[in-house]
Amino acid sequence: MAEKTDEKKVTPRSQDFAAWYNDLILRAELADYSPVRGCIVFRPDGFAIWENLRDELDRRIKRTGARNAYFPLFIPQSFLQKEAQHVEGFAPEVAVVTHGGGKELEEPLIVRPTSETIINYMFAQWIHSHRDLPLMINQWCNVVRWEMRTRPFLRTTEFLWQEGHTAHATRAEAERETLTMLEVYRGFVEDFLAIPLVYGRKSAAERFPGAEETYTIEGLMPDGRALQCGTSHYLGQNFAKAFEIRFLDEGNQLQHPHQTSWGVSTRLLGAIIMAHGDDQGLRLPPAVASIQVVVVPIWRKADEGERVLAAARAILESLEKSGLRAKLDEREGVTPGFKFNDWEMRGVPLRIEIGPRDVAAGEVVMARRDIAGQPGKSKAPIAEVSARAISLLDEIQKNLYRQAKATVDANTRTFDDYAGLRAQMEGEGGGGLADIYWCGNPACETKIREETRATCRAIPLNQNGAPGKCIVCGESASERAFFAKAY
Amino acid sequence: MAEKTDEKKVTPRSQDFAAWYNDLILRAELADYSPVRGCIVFRPDGFAIWENLRDELDRRIKRTGARNAYFPLFIPQSFLQKEAQHVEGFAPEVAVVTHGGGKELEEPLIVRPTSETIINYMFAQWIHSHRDLPLMINQWCNVVRWEMRTRPFLRTTEFLWQEGHTAHATRAEAERETLTMLEVYRGFVEDFLAIPLVYGRKSAAERFPGAEETYTIEGLMPDGRALQCGTSHYLGQNFAKAFEIRFLDEGNQLQHPHQTSWGVSTRLLGAIIMAHGDDQGLRLPPAVASIQVVVVPIWRKADEGERVLAAARAILESLEKSGLRAKLDEREGVTPGFKFNDWEMRGVPLRIEIGPRDVAAGEVVMARRDIAGQPGKSKAPIAEVSARAISLLDEIQKNLYRQAKATVDANTRTFDDYAGLRAQMEGEGGGGLADIYWCGNPACETKIREETRATCRAIPLNQNGAPGKCIVCGESASERAFFAKAY
Repeated sequence: MAEKTDEKKVTPRSQDFAAWYNDLILRAELADYSPVRGCIVFRPDGFAIWENLRDELDRRIKRTGARNAYFPLFIPQSFLQKEAQHVEGFAPEVAVVTHGGGKELEEPLIVRPTSETIINYMFAQWIHSHRDLPLMINQWCNVVRWEMRTRPFLRTTEFLWQEGHTAHATRAEAERETLTMLEVYRGFVEDFLAIPLVYGRKSAAERFPGAEETYTIEGLMPDGRALQCGTSHYLGQNFAKAFEIRFLDEGNQLQHPHQTSWGVSTRLLGAIIMAHGDDQGLRLPPAVASIQVVVVPIWRKADEGERVLAAARAILESLEKSGLRAKLDEREGVTPGFKFNDWEMRGVPLRIEIGPRDVAAGEVVMARRDIAGQPGKSKAPIAEVSARAISLLDEIQKNLYRQAKATVDANTRTFDDYAGLRAQMEGEGGGGLADIYWCGNPACETKIREETRATCRAIPLNQNGAPGKCIVCGESASERAFFAKAY
Repeated sequence: MAEKTDEKKVTPRSQDFAAWYNDLILRAELADYSPVRGCIVFRPDGFAIWENLRDELDRRIKRTGARNAYFPLFIPQSFLQKEAQHVEGFAPEVAVVTHGGGKELEEPLIVRPTSETIINYMFAQWIHSHRDLPLMINQWCNVVRWEMRTRPFLRTTEFLWQEGHTAHATRAEAERETLTMLEVYRGFVEDFLAIPLVYGRKSAAERFPGAEETYTIEGLMPDGRALQCGTSHYLGQNFAKAFEIRFLDEGNQLQHPHQTSWGVSTRLLGAIIMAHGDDQGLRLPPAVASIQVVVVPIWRKADEGERVLAAARAILESLEKSGLRAKLDEREGVTPGFKFNDWEMRGVPLRIEIGPRDVAAGEVVMARRDIAGQPGKSKAPIAEVSARAISLLDEIQKNLYRQAKATVDANTRTFDDYAGLRAQMEGEGGGGLADIYWCGNPACETKIREETRATCRAIPLNQNGAPGKCIVCGESASERAFFAKAY
């Protein structure tokens, strides 16, 4: 059996987190760089994670009553300019189509950076009466923002996302929708992707351009930097006024609806990689893994191989019958050790090893990806493999969350004085999540940002402490807030 | 109960097919015109059909071994120019991004009209050895072609599609893949969308720019015009040479792989509408309908309403338990007649009507969308509703195909002389599918196109007749071909 040499390992995570992240993406074949500035190629193993994630989130979004639709990629340049903050936020980072069909266009077209403007133009055609409300639309699509510094999945010129857009008769209903979607995102990311979060309001400085209130879910990555994982915006009547959306209410009065928008993107792939990956590669939560269990047969002699492969195929069938996503690695020309490393790199949560002695003993070895080496291994009777796999995958899903949560907790600190915060952010590898009193004054926020590079990530919704003093200015502060350096 | 007045009907199909088509799309709320030239908005009812269609086709594509990936929306202008026929075919209809992030770009970017070029650029990075082959990639995405005359779903500047791209070690394997995908498309469109097809090779004039051979599935619409529903191309080594894709074969020789590409688009929504729709609106094949069965409760007095609604809800539950996609129309303020018309317009295949006397008798009325009026109605015991619905939906799926096939057959004619063909194409409402001997000479094809506007739609794969004489020039012809005016 010709042995394939082990390809080069990824940079150790502890040595250089950013290099580790990029190495892992290339080695696990999740994505590749493209010849187009700032754009990546999603390779099949990376795109499959996105498909699993998208399908599950799509089900959860539809359960709230929103329906999918599709709006044009291009937006007339004049549309973007209708809402003052919105144009200010997006104008610097748009891609512009100036020519079509061999001719210069009369009005340039913007490649959508987000679709509030064109969707609200259509909402104005569709909304006339309170009977047309609520109108709840979701769109899965590509968007383009001309980013200066890009990183695979985390920040790319083109990315994939879903953007929900809703219109409601009352402010209360729209505000409720904004929080409903925040909770949908939180539940999805914590339960399905096993990524622990903090969540809450954004400060005014961090709001979506055109929103009255932005809510966010934020993950703290193991390098101590926060990653915004999803946002839900209460838009008030800003876009409704800009696009002249009006409805006759039950009292026959013309009103502007109250609106929301909310989205998550392929950035979540970056969150999965960073929150769970290790020096051996990717570690996928079973819920989102395309291959949940890989069966690796081990043998040397041909007659052994027959028996081992027959047993391995029976196991594969049993796993698939139990509804698990399983794969049998029958590759020839590579060693079992190479296969182990390969599937560890690709993040498969559970590996089943079976050799001639196992077949004779009627058992297999099951190796968990979330617990390295011998402690993650156990034996199971062949007859019980599927039941054991189901319970192990459930444990792995929970354990990945627990491990990530422990890392977040270890990197979350309460500061009562500004000097402490500053020292923490400035130190070697400094960062982490800072839980502080902030008076809400933008000047104090700016001072923190300029001096420590930490920004306000979220002001938690449930403030259960007493009022305190702002750690910057010492004035009274009614709320605690999370600050961190962010992606 | 306030009655909502019946909105205006669609133009009768027999009166003006094109107006009927546009009216139906707007009235059934499948799509709407957008403020961007040549682009439409897919409304939720239209997009849901696309989602159902896409999910099923995606499963069928994956079963062939292809995997999904995602490549950049933008293509460097120089890429398009690498393959001579390809640039000639697409250069006139591209949209060009000249500015990004507030600056003029050094090299303009093309918004992808199709992704052969950028995908093959990446294939060159990934393919090194025969062990890397076959490489089979599929992409669901938006593409842009600057069309002069657009029609909803059939021809729009932006549209959605899937494009498969594969690379193989041998010509034979790539040719087999091309035909495999043709058969996947044929089976999908005929079985799932209930649209009868003819299929075969394209003539040289109708080939995809850069392909050595193009295969097509073609539907004949009730107005006598053909609609290309999907294509599968054997690309030979043209793109492999242009993008320098090479692999070491088993004999350690450097070779260019042989390639294919294949795609279907949102144009299929237009095919469904035209093939099945009638003057009452859309008629959806049950396999692709988001709502397969609608339950309409009928009552006048409040106490009747309670009993009827309770029975209707129990029926809904039973339908859903049986795995059917069902909906109960509990709307107040509109009459049952309005609801009947509304669901007929939206194409729901089966309607269940239940009133107080039905509840007392323990039965319901089931009305088929594929057979108008009384002949399409039958009674069923409430206890048997789900079983009956399942068998009726199966019948409806088959009957829609039969009805469409009868229309195609009635519009398919064999011509032995050119005058006959010409008279048929020129006549009032002239068109239909012409089955003729053609010698294969482009001059004869051009003559037909210029004089009758009919083009060669497909040269069937299985030629079971003897050789004959070209109906244009009288020279010997080895094959029959289908000619028609086309969308």
